[in-house]
Amino acid sequence: MKSHTEYLFFNTTKRREFINITPKVEELVRESGIKEGLCLVNAMHITASVFINDDERGLHHDFEIWLEKFVPHEPVSNYRHNLTGEDNADAHLKRTIMGREIVVAITEGKLDFGPWEQIFYGEFDGRRRKRVLVKIIGE
Amino acid sequence: MKSHTEYLFFNTTKRREFINITPKVEELVRESGIKEGLCLVNAMHITASVFINDDERGLHHDFEIWLEKFVPHEPVSNYRHNLTGEDNADAHLKRTIMGREIVVAITEGKLDFGPWEQIFYGEFDGRRRKRVLVKIIGE
Amino acid sequence: MKSHTEYLFFNTTKRREFINITPKVEELVRESGIKEGLCLVNAMHITASVFINDDERGLHHDFEIWLEKFVPHEPVSNYRHNLTGEDNADAHLKRTIMGREIVVAITEGKLDFGPWEQIFYGEFDGRRRKRVLVKIIGE
Repeated sequence: MKSHTEYLFFNTTKRREFINITPKVEELVRESGIKEGLCLVNAMHITASVFINDDERGLHHDFEIWLEKFVPHEPVSNYRHNLTGEDNADAHLKRTIMGREIVVAITEGKLDFGPWEQIFYGEFDGRRRKRVLVKIIGE
Repeated sequence: MKSHTEYLFFNTTKRREFINITPKVEELVRESGIKEGLCLVNAMHITASVFINDDERGLHHDFEIWLEKFVPHEPVSNYRHNLTGEDNADAHLKRTIMGREIVVAITEGKLDFGPWEQIFYGEFDGRRRKRVLVKIIGE
Repeated sequence: MKSHTEYLFFNTTKRREFINITPKVEELVRESGIKEGLCLVNAMHITASVFINDDERGLHHDFEIWLEKFVPHEPVSNYRHNLTGEDNADAHLKRTIMGREIVVAITEGKLDFGPWEQIFYGEFDGRRRKRVLVKIIGE
């Protein structure tokens, strides 16, 4: 069994942001030389997400509106977590809906994806340096 | 390390539908000959889900009502994604709640499940040919 | 490839409860002797969750309030599943939001975590003996 570990870094400029990281993950799969296996991609922060969906700007807008409706950022005093001095309780909850991680099959040396699957980093409490882990195992 | 890759195909007849795919996955685990490892099962479409829950018709009805309440299909004009000509923005969001994939342990040649765990394909924009990936790795 | 399988048992005393199981999972990773690989941790019950987030009491309170708002336990007659004689339909839905499982990378013999990542068992229909599966594969 072979394994390959890499960390992707981001400097997000907005509080909330979706970044397509598919090309970076594809590159790491190539580098790994692994032909058959599994690829884990996860946020290393608990107010961020890695998820798979469509790279369509209107849909990302819909995600933003929908997440804000069910877990509003304001008033920050609505969340007990924010008594710690943070204002990001909503970000912890939003990331829970969107998911921490994805696991993708690697088949014949490539991410084994359906036609529209794209990997996104979802930031819900940005404006800081953030990190994503990519772990590939297989042969 | 051994690996085994299979694709399950469905022709769903309704827009929304839950299909129990546990027997098919169990069969693939047997075929693989893998005794200890991991089994990834994921939707290859971004408006569908693979999830684990109870095979109880009343519960599936509750899922349907609950998902429709928080992410209504109508009015389709409520979603910016639908400006692309699609009417399935809600399906992208519903699948996000239900999850894209599951990872199950294989122990002594079998899916290592609790007593009620069953694997479902969840369709939220059906009436087309759809695909699920099963990837098994181990020894 | 090596593999290591363990089951964690709990006797939860309340209907809903979050239990930090990170130290137990870390111990199992050490015991396994696996240096590079993947660690799957999943609930074996369909009304419970394993998830990763912050070990902060205020945030856990926010999760509780938020889950109860979107999937209220009462009135139990609101859920068709409860016609089976159960009163836990809400627990099935709450666990769906929180997720069944996590997959964590193992790097240099340790859970490869960001600074705040902690693993929780989330109980939504407790007061019974419950089980979590930990499966570690790698080399």
